[in-house]
Amino acid sequence: MTAFKTREPRAVVTRDPNFEQKIRLSFQHQGVMHAWGAELVAIAPGYAEIHLPFSDKVKQQHGLFHGGVVATVADSASGFATYTVLEADEECLSAEFKINFLYPARGSKLIARGGVIKVGRTLVIAESTVSIVKDGIETECGLMIHTMARAKHVRTGM
Amino acid sequence: MTAFKTREPRAVVTRDPNFEQKIRLSFQHQGVMHAWGAELVAIAPGYAEIHLPFSDKVKQQHGLFHGGVVATVADSASGFATYTVLEADEECLSAEFKINFLYPARGSKLIARGGVIKVGRTLVIAESTVSIVKDGIETECGLMIHTMARAKHVRTGM
Amino acid sequence: MTAFKTREPRAVVTRDPNFEQKIRLSFQHQGVMHAWGAELVAIAPGYAEIHLPFSDKVKQQHGLFHGGVVATVADSASGFATYTVLEADEECLSAEFKINFLYPARGSKLIARGGVIKVGRTLVIAESTVSIVKDGIETECGLMIHTMARAKHVRTGM
Amino acid sequence: MTAFKTREPRAVVTRDPNFEQKIRLSFQHQGVMHAWGAELVAIAPGYAEIHLPFSDKVKQQHGLFHGGVVATVADSASGFATYTVLEADEECLSAEFKINFLYPARGSKLIARGGVIKVGRTLVIAESTVSIVKDGIETECGLMIHTMARAKHVRTGM
Repeated sequence: MTAFKTREPRAVVTRDPNFEQKIRLSFQHQGVMHAWGAELVAIAPGYAEIHLPFSDKVKQQHGLFHGGVVATVADSASGFATYTVLEADEECLSAEFKINFLYPARGSKLIARGGVIKVGRTLVIAESTVSIVKDGIETECGLMIHTMARAKHVRTGM
Repeated sequence: MTAFKTREPRAVVTRDPNFEQKIRLSFQHQGVMHAWGAELVAIAPGYAEIHLPFSDKVKQQHGLFHGGVVATVADSASGFATYTVLEADEECLSAEFKINFLYPARGSKLIARGGVIKVGRTLVIAESTVSIVKDGIETECGLMIHTMARAKHVRTGM
Repeated sequence: MTAFKTREPRAVVTRDPNFEQKIRLSFQHQGVMHAWGAELVAIAPGYAEIHLPFSDKVKQQHGLFHGGVVATVADSASGFATYTVLEADEECLSAEFKINFLYPARGSKLIARGGVIKVGRTLVIAESTVSIVKDGIETECGLMIHTMARAKHVRTGM
Repeated sequence: MTAFKTREPRAVVTRDPNFEQKIRLSFQHQGVMHAWGAELVAIAPGYAEIHLPFSDKVKQQHGLFHGGVVATVADSASGFATYTVLEADEECLSAEFKINFLYPARGSKLIARGGVIKVGRTLVIAESTVSIVKDGIETECGLMIHTMARAKHVRTGM
């Protein structure tokens, strides 16, 4: 009955001194986060944390958080974690992600924690873990691996 | 400059004569679909099609559909396609999915088409393709593979 | 009891008139394919097909083809399908892949068919379907989605 | 320039007191591991570690370990990690896996470390990290998430 951890801590380097400001502004413009009442709770080098309260707007047919909603907050968390390591004039675009659902997402709040795994020249690999909070107890319910392509000059339509 | 198709058509068997009614009711209870104004446009054996109009509620920071939103409609489409092949007293729960983003989701509407790939005793594998509609032209922007676990007696909280 | 196909044929453009020669040479240098006795049966624009006979060298503990072996031929098939659409001086490197196992791979031969889904400037998305042949009957046993990064000047160690 | 770890250690429970013996026997029967000269270096509750030396039998066209080979040792490592938590009469079958390639696998040896993430009633989720060893330095080159279905009575053909 031992415990085992397969992932070692990773050092990250930030390139943009104003990353937090850029990310907070970007989060404000994610209409889907705003409509759901999501909150960017923490941002740090290689890390982002988003909380999402339960509501009718995020549920599926059995009253749980919809799996796609779990994926959406996970995507935003690993995406913003990635923003912390980009150059000031860079953005990132999702190439793909994969999420495993570990536990039914029934509860009052989702907590998505995104972290950077590998910063490459053209791609960044990040991950997110998502927990469901019920009666004050946090249980992991989702695990995402997320591949993003680095890009300059993304045309914005904010 | 030839064309190539790697996927052959698949025959599916329906087990529940009332699958369409069950699915339409289930779709109505997906609060996230309702909040976004999504529409279940077609349901047929092994197939489901969902349309989602663009709005502030589904956008990310550059004015595109959020990648998680693309994943959410894809998840619902392949999920409901799977419902068409289940027994009358069965539900399905997402074990995992993976989505590739093929094209920026900038446009007026998403169309997600879900299809069943393999119906096993405990798992069902399905896929969804998602297209973005802009100026009346449809372009594929997402491809999802979706693994679901068959389950009886899912506790509902509708 | 209808059939449904979610994937439309895709047109591909070849950039290297000598792609077949380049791919056949590359296949010869894949030591793992040679050691297993795999055969590159067909190569065409956007398409590659590899056959792998069963042997002790590819089996897992129950006498089936090892899942990793199924993934390896799928990876090679979608990889070589991608080679057909690259420039003459380009290579591609796997960024990631995901494979679903649809059926136990017990039989005399695997057939992997790779096809190109999307050719982007920096990434190519391809897929492979793998079938198991037993008593002359072919059954789909694997489905892979494969993301590759385009690259010039890969240092070779042939 | 801080470091961040998103994964917490996980406690696992073993059900079969003879898991190590069962796994070592099973490893011996994985013909693909034997043919490549792979070695099961460690087995512990929720953990398995496999080493694979470089040879012509595992290389792709540029002299690196083939991506499918990286996936195969990762699959075996997370698979055997999962065996440690199963009942004595159980096996597991791969439903799907996804692997990201973080670094070119050029070197003298691969080290795959598998760990269990979630043990469910019908599914187990595990992961593997793979490192490449070159000039005595170990660099992470692969990250796999692996979904397995628990099964009794897998027909063996050893």
